[in-house]
Amino acid sequence: MSWVEGAADSLYSVHHLPYGVFSTRDDASPRIGVRIGDQVLDVRALVSGSSCPGCTTCSALGAANLNPLLAAGSETWGKVRSQLQEALTNVELKATVSQLLTPVSRVIMHMPFTPADYVDFYSSEHHAVNLGKIFRPNGDPLMPNWKHLPVGYHGRAGTLVPSGTEIVRPSGQRRTPEGDLTFGPSARLDIEAEVGFVVGAPSQLGSSVAADGFTEHVFGVVLVNDWSARDIQAWEYQPLGPFLGKSFATSIGTWVTPLDALAAARVPAPVQEPAVLPYLKESDRYGYDITLSVNWNGTEVARPPFAEMYWTPAQQLAHMTVNGASLRPGDFYASGTVSGPQPHQRGSFLELTWSGNEPVTLADGSIRTFLVDGDTVSITATAPGPRGTTIGLGDVTGTIRPAIG
Amino acid sequence: MSWVEGAADSLYSVHHLPYGVFSTRDDASPRIGVRIGDQVLDVRALVSGSSCPGCTTCSALGAANLNPLLAAGSETWGKVRSQLQEALTNVELKATVSQLLTPVSRVIMHMPFTPADYVDFYSSEHHAVNLGKIFRPNGDPLMPNWKHLPVGYHGRAGTLVPSGTEIVRPSGQRRTPEGDLTFGPSARLDIEAEVGFVVGAPSQLGSSVAADGFTEHVFGVVLVNDWSARDIQAWEYQPLGPFLGKSFATSIGTWVTPLDALAAARVPAPVQEPAVLPYLKESDRYGYDITLSVNWNGTEVARPPFAEMYWTPAQQLAHMTVNGASLRPGDFYASGTVSGPQPHQRGSFLELTWSGNEPVTLADGSIRTFLVDGDTVSITATAPGPRGTTIGLGDVTGTIRPAIG
Repeated sequence: MSWVEGAADSLYSVHHLPYGVFSTRDDASPRIGVRIGDQVLDVRALVSGSSCPGCTTCSALGAANLNPLLAAGSETWGKVRSQLQEALTNVELKATVSQLLTPVSRVIMHMPFTPADYVDFYSSEHHAVNLGKIFRPNGDPLMPNWKHLPVGYHGRAGTLVPSGTEIVRPSGQRRTPEGDLTFGPSARLDIEAEVGFVVGAPSQLGSSVAADGFTEHVFGVVLVNDWSARDIQAWEYQPLGPFLGKSFATSIGTWVTPLDALAAARVPAPVQEPAVLPYLKESDRYGYDITLSVNWNGTEVARPPFAEMYWTPAQQLAHMTVNGASLRPGDFYASGTVSGPQPHQRGSFLELTWSGNEPVTLADGSIRTFLVDGDTVSITATAPGPRGTTIGLGDVTGTIRPAIG
Repeated sequence: MSWVEGAADSLYSVHHLPYGVFSTRDDASPRIGVRIGDQVLDVRALVSGSSCPGCTTCSALGAANLNPLLAAGSETWGKVRSQLQEALTNVELKATVSQLLTPVSRVIMHMPFTPADYVDFYSSEHHAVNLGKIFRPNGDPLMPNWKHLPVGYHGRAGTLVPSGTEIVRPSGQRRTPEGDLTFGPSARLDIEAEVGFVVGAPSQLGSSVAADGFTEHVFGVVLVNDWSARDIQAWEYQPLGPFLGKSFATSIGTWVTPLDALAAARVPAPVQEPAVLPYLKESDRYGYDITLSVNWNGTEVARPPFAEMYWTPAQQLAHMTVNGASLRPGDFYASGTVSGPQPHQRGSFLELTWSGNEPVTLADGSIRTFLVDGDTVSITATAPGPRGTTIGLGDVTGTIRPAIG
């Protein structure tokens, strides 16, 4: 148990220890911190007194973002985690280490890592079926390829933004229901509640990573809100996929939960039928029992269950690299919208309001279909942690600002 | 005229001066060079003796890649170009500067910049029509959106590789003509001859860049071969676009031609009908008279004309940012396959062999539809330069290696 007061009973016990990049009013330089209870431990300060000259791990922990630590690989991740747990549980270290804590309410959070490539998948069967029913009411809701491969595409890494960044409503061209071409601010601005995976260890161009290489290559998990302008997307996406309907901004949480902290949250993933090709087979197939909570101006409107995802993050990684595409530290891939079988488990407003036909009522009595300027969406999540604890995956929050011009 | 022997009559006169990153056997550190005739000027060495302490331009020119120079903006690009032209034309400097030249045959070329985001467009009407006729023989060859916006999508920046990198044939899943699911090396490995644009000056998230901002934001031009596995692509691409059929590798030329060097190559771009929306209008609409040459094992099989592109790079830039997506130094966007109206102007083998139905015969008598292991494709290009000269855009070359495993 940690000597940090209140940590044991919080969503951020010593069994969790998510990593982030923070600064403070006193010291504006972004640096790595880990969250413990309602405190942030300054990791750079912790290693600054270390007496191991030329130590690459200390150098990585003293960096301005997580990228050097990501590149260091899973063995280092495990060692660092053990050492941080020691620092936060050994009472003999309390006097020294407690001076390196800052209340989370007093830190400014930054992007935890510099993204390399960003891939977004489409791995919830319930989500894909819902969209199929909405857009192709007379056809098979799933495309023929959907159960054979985790459909995905590349997004814009340069517009991944940290939670708290205001989202300017995008403008673009779209076709009106009457078939006219028009230009202006999106009228169907939506969210997608997702879970993202941060790649650490790189791979070689021309080689693939097996599904069982997941824990070796992936460092941790963050929440994602893949803001989506449905009207822009609908007009542009044939035949090369989503582009401007997505690329204006994708928000990510500022705390990266290490995979090790989610060991207790592993659950069997849905059985796949038909059977998948060998490169998508896992010797130990599991998902994560992460329950998301989507909050629209403070009203919880959905609780999407990540455990229901048809394609697992290990399969996504194997698929993404089976053609020889290499991985870089900072590569980031997201699950796609998390939606469960129940109406209150839908992770997009497109589904939740059934394309705007079934508005939702918020706690203040206001009625919504898509996002209105000034709206705030906050996605949070919890999962089972070690020894009966519960882990919090922080939040990803954004407020909509009016279109410019 | 440059004092460098033979430069004036070459494709790399002092009016051209493309930038690259090179190393030599004597000095393995990658550094910026400019090409003049058949020589490479070591720019780092040139500025290393400069006596302007803290000068950010000198620091950018001494960097290991072009990214700091890209970030410096168009005013700096113009100044640096003038100074390099002075160094290479002023005979009083010959004695000093000539010591900083290395024959191009003796340098090793590297990636000229670290790519940020990579976007690939689809802007040749002839190409889009050809693909429409091949894949949808009974429908309208162009999608309804095609003449209203430059269709594009994000590619994988991490697998952009410099010319000369060997290309491992990708494996993946696809459907056989009989409808069976199978896995293995791509049997329809293709090229796409394209022209790419390197973004320098960044823009703010939430703001857009006008079409007329093209020369302010874009630094220069490189050749691109967007290798494409047509069988993998055909099975995966619905509904989110190309993914593994493209992400295994995209080759780019190692010499970046500054936009200034292409001023004499400007030509009126095709008239657009129907009229485009205001954000896609250019006050001075122009394309570039760049003629590509596609060489398959040494046989020229196509001469695609870039001047025929329906959507210009200025329009592509305006479209890419109209939703508020920001630009970063090192962002890279490519034109899409360049194809002209004539059969010998087609920039992909899919078109050139009409989906494999009309094989081509190479100079050695061998017959080809798609790429065979061991094949080498080299794309070169020329354009009118200043004062009646001709500019060479270098080459982008790759050889196919067998699939692994």
